[in-house]
Amino acid sequence: MKRWNGWGEETFEYPLHDDALAFLASRIGTGQAVQDASFEAACASLAASRLPDHPLVDKAPATRLRNALGQSLPDWLKLRYGRIGRAPDGVAYPESAEQVRELIFFAMQHGAALIPQGGGTSVAGHLTAPDGERPVLAVNMTRMGRLHHLDRQAQLATFGAGVLGPDLEAQLRAHGYMLGHFPQSFEYSTLGGWVVTRSSGQQSLRYGRIEQMFAGGVVETPQGRLDIPTFPASAAGTDLREIVLGSEGRMGILTEATVRVSALPEYEAFHAVFFPDWERAEAAVRTLAQARGGLSMLRLSNPLETVTMLALAGHKRLIGLLEGWLRLRGCGEGKCMLMIGVSGTRRLARVALAAALATCAAHQGVHVGRRMGDKWKEGRFRNVYLRNAAWQQGYVIDTVETAVDWPRVSLMMGAVEAAATGVLGGMGEKVHTYTHLSHLYAQGASVYTTFVYRLAGDFETDMARWRALKHAVSMAIVDNGGTISHQHGVGSDHAPYLAAEKGPAGIAAMQALFSHFDPQGIMNPGKLLPGGQGA
Amino acid sequence: MKRWNGWGEETFEYPLHDDALAFLASRIGTGQAVQDASFEAACASLAASRLPDHPLVDKAPATRLRNALGQSLPDWLKLRYGRIGRAPDGVAYPESAEQVRELIFFAMQHGAALIPQGGGTSVAGHLTAPDGERPVLAVNMTRMGRLHHLDRQAQLATFGAGVLGPDLEAQLRAHGYMLGHFPQSFEYSTLGGWVVTRSSGQQSLRYGRIEQMFAGGVVETPQGRLDIPTFPASAAGTDLREIVLGSEGRMGILTEATVRVSALPEYEAFHAVFFPDWERAEAAVRTLAQARGGLSMLRLSNPLETVTMLALAGHKRLIGLLEGWLRLRGCGEGKCMLMIGVSGTRRLARVALAAALATCAAHQGVHVGRRMGDKWKEGRFRNVYLRNAAWQQGYVIDTVETAVDWPRVSLMMGAVEAAATGVLGGMGEKVHTYTHLSHLYAQGASVYTTFVYRLAGDFETDMARWRALKHAVSMAIVDNGGTISHQHGVGSDHAPYLAAEKGPAGIAAMQALFSHFDPQGIMNPGKLLPGGQGA
Repeated sequence: MKRWNGWGEETFEYPLHDDALAFLASRIGTGQAVQDASFEAACASLAASRLPDHPLVDKAPATRLRNALGQSLPDWLKLRYGRIGRAPDGVAYPESAEQVRELIFFAMQHGAALIPQGGGTSVAGHLTAPDGERPVLAVNMTRMGRLHHLDRQAQLATFGAGVLGPDLEAQLRAHGYMLGHFPQSFEYSTLGGWVVTRSSGQQSLRYGRIEQMFAGGVVETPQGRLDIPTFPASAAGTDLREIVLGSEGRMGILTEATVRVSALPEYEAFHAVFFPDWERAEAAVRTLAQARGGLSMLRLSNPLETVTMLALAGHKRLIGLLEGWLRLRGCGEGKCMLMIGVSGTRRLARVALAAALATCAAHQGVHVGRRMGDKWKEGRFRNVYLRNAAWQQGYVIDTVETAVDWPRVSLMMGAVEAAATGVLGGMGEKVHTYTHLSHLYAQGASVYTTFVYRLAGDFETDMARWRALKHAVSMAIVDNGGTISHQHGVGSDHAPYLAAEKGPAGIAAMQALFSHFDPQGIMNPGKLLPGGQGA
Repeated sequence: MKRWNGWGEETFEYPLHDDALAFLASRIGTGQAVQDASFEAACASLAASRLPDHPLVDKAPATRLRNALGQSLPDWLKLRYGRIGRAPDGVAYPESAEQVRELIFFAMQHGAALIPQGGGTSVAGHLTAPDGERPVLAVNMTRMGRLHHLDRQAQLATFGAGVLGPDLEAQLRAHGYMLGHFPQSFEYSTLGGWVVTRSSGQQSLRYGRIEQMFAGGVVETPQGRLDIPTFPASAAGTDLREIVLGSEGRMGILTEATVRVSALPEYEAFHAVFFPDWERAEAAVRTLAQARGGLSMLRLSNPLETVTMLALAGHKRLIGLLEGWLRLRGCGEGKCMLMIGVSGTRRLARVALAAALATCAAHQGVHVGRRMGDKWKEGRFRNVYLRNAAWQQGYVIDTVETAVDWPRVSLMMGAVEAAATGVLGGMGEKVHTYTHLSHLYAQGASVYTTFVYRLAGDFETDMARWRALKHAVSMAIVDNGGTISHQHGVGSDHAPYLAAEKGPAGIAAMQALFSHFDPQGIMNPGKLLPGGQGA
């Protein structure tokens, strides 16, 4: 069963080994485990439901609790400490567009706020029930996950929008196709969630962001149904897909989505390259991203992330040998690890890889071969489980991400890390912070920073730490010209920082658009834009 | 000087040679030249200006006439017959955003409709002055065409939005960069026009559509200024660029645009391949488009377009030899010509070309080498001049384009051609109609059909022919699931067909968005959506 207060399957553990713990202790001190609240206690803490009965709505506390929060750190703190606060007053699991319409109507009738959700993996507070008097209905879309139609000629697949990543790929694989969207949340996030939060997967360099994959679909809104047909491209006015993308539940519920799929590639490989320092590594990946060289992935870790990944990997002796060998080749202290992915026909993939490795070599990059790359691929959805293991040792792992044009990439990385170090330092705590560039573009890169620090052990202090950290790093992002999110969306946690990039005119345009579809302001109020926009 | 009633430079002629004329005569009969109205007579026909004086507004009839119409066939008929009808009451050539704001304010003050324009190359009626009492102000953006900023690291260039294609590329080339957007109108169309009509260039397979190039910019609207900053990618809510793209002047005037540029490629080549028939050719290009094989262009002519291009090419003896040789290789009657472009590093371009040629060979494609490809590139902006030459011989050339998913590409081609043949046949005229696929996607293709038929010789009959033809082919597009435009936009000519793809909910959303920026409905009324949306 899925963990109610952590990541993933209850039966799967991915423990921190002793060397990793020693590494963390040396960086930020020894953690102190906290006693988690029980599921029963958390259920018992919920206020009585304010929703009237409806045959589709489940008001059992256990169901409400399981749909109350996502995977952001404040969500975790609420769950772990059993301080849930607001939860939805009822949860529906619709199985058809008709039922979705019925639920929207039900919410309108009773002045309820409606929170659409998929796999509940939001790390930006998309699921939080809003404060106030009105009841809250959560609509969980995961029962609408069937492959409705596969058009082999056009390479289009139409799914119920609640399909989970693995179910989507499995249904396609049965026909020889794939989507290729692999965010780290892949195992528990849904197609609909990807679309409405503008998600991006690890192999976006080849397959594109969800924006490029989303070809059309159906949205049920308080003002009626919006049907978006598929075209390979169009110059006919406003692209309606773009109204749905990034709408975060504010305009309606995406019930069906058609995506651009691909034939399974003949060949796929991931290779690791090390660089002596960040400057050379950054120059190399910028060159690679601008060369349109047919790669499927580039993922560059900064020196501290490189050290951390090697420390957490286990195999101390092997890693020691590797590091010795790298040192001889010029990659010592300050080295940076790059993962390169290639997919496609064997021939084109090999040519692309050879060209990329030549570019790396020109920047003193040392190719260590495919083994580490394969290991990375193997573990790519497992690393999230480290969050559970760290928590058990009294540590929290939190992340933040942005994207920025090349001239500010290094500045951004420095500013975000420094902001975190500064704010926690001011509270007398150390933070272990490291960064990678996970999505590379000709224009710039995403900057993805991780923070590991100790739990204080009480809810208020831990929330205050998170709040201060979030504010400091968000201001660093905004002040350095980054977008408040490259791949996780805005939700409630990033909403205060959105105006910095959209400007008052942009915010007003978004408000006008969502108010048009949702004049009563019942759709996911408080997310993306402050307040119920119709209120 | 630019022709006032035709395409391009007055001093440049691209005549139809005798064999080409004989070919046309054999297909649709001999044309009868028509006496064009004089520029002076056309000027004299304009009604008096209804705009008050303003230091930025030129009310001279010659200026008004030169900014009255675009390049659609009805626009040509109006110009050639001197039946201009409505023209703008004045024309401004702003040189700064401040002046643009001043002009918007002036239009609001006097209840004038404002028509933003670039190079005046619209083929969808974007520039037509609306009927009614209110005065009309044309705002010509071509004096705002400077390169403001080039960011080499991020490969971003910021231009005044009125920059013409050749000026844009020349300013970039001076720094070793290029944009790579080459619509057939390239020589006379502007960056701003490309953005607001969602234009697509001949090498979009490599460089993307204008949607992918447009990174940010500034729009002056009746509600104030909208600033769109640049990010490599973002998951932060609505992408404001998408509100500007395809807005066709309805929300405001784009004054500045930042585009994603590329280093000049090391290598570029175009190659020609012939296929025995359409079925094999279509299967080959679909395979190529779905293989993500690193090509920069694919352009496939159907049998009649292939015949026509060979007939118009001149060099009868050489073409005869080529056709004989092709016949021996299996490409006789019904053969289809494919142009393949590759750009990039010499090594990757060659590998990509070799892989593409292997795919072609597997579909019985016969590679005839680079010479025809180079010829095609040389003439790619010159073919438009054939329209002038055909007119002088009593023929009109008109085109229509759409895009559709692969299962309907051939159906669409047949339906559009049959609609044209049917409607003109009903009027006792023959039409020479042929098609190419110019933009290929994994999902489908653009379908671009040309019609050549004889002028009737009087304005009313020729307008009636055009109207009947346009309606018939637009209905064929809509009925076969195509978009009403893949690359030319909606304007006034396609507006009646837009609801078929957007649906009432989509049209209402667009209306809500534009009304937000332009509550008085002064911005380009009647284009894209019917009526002044605020009216």
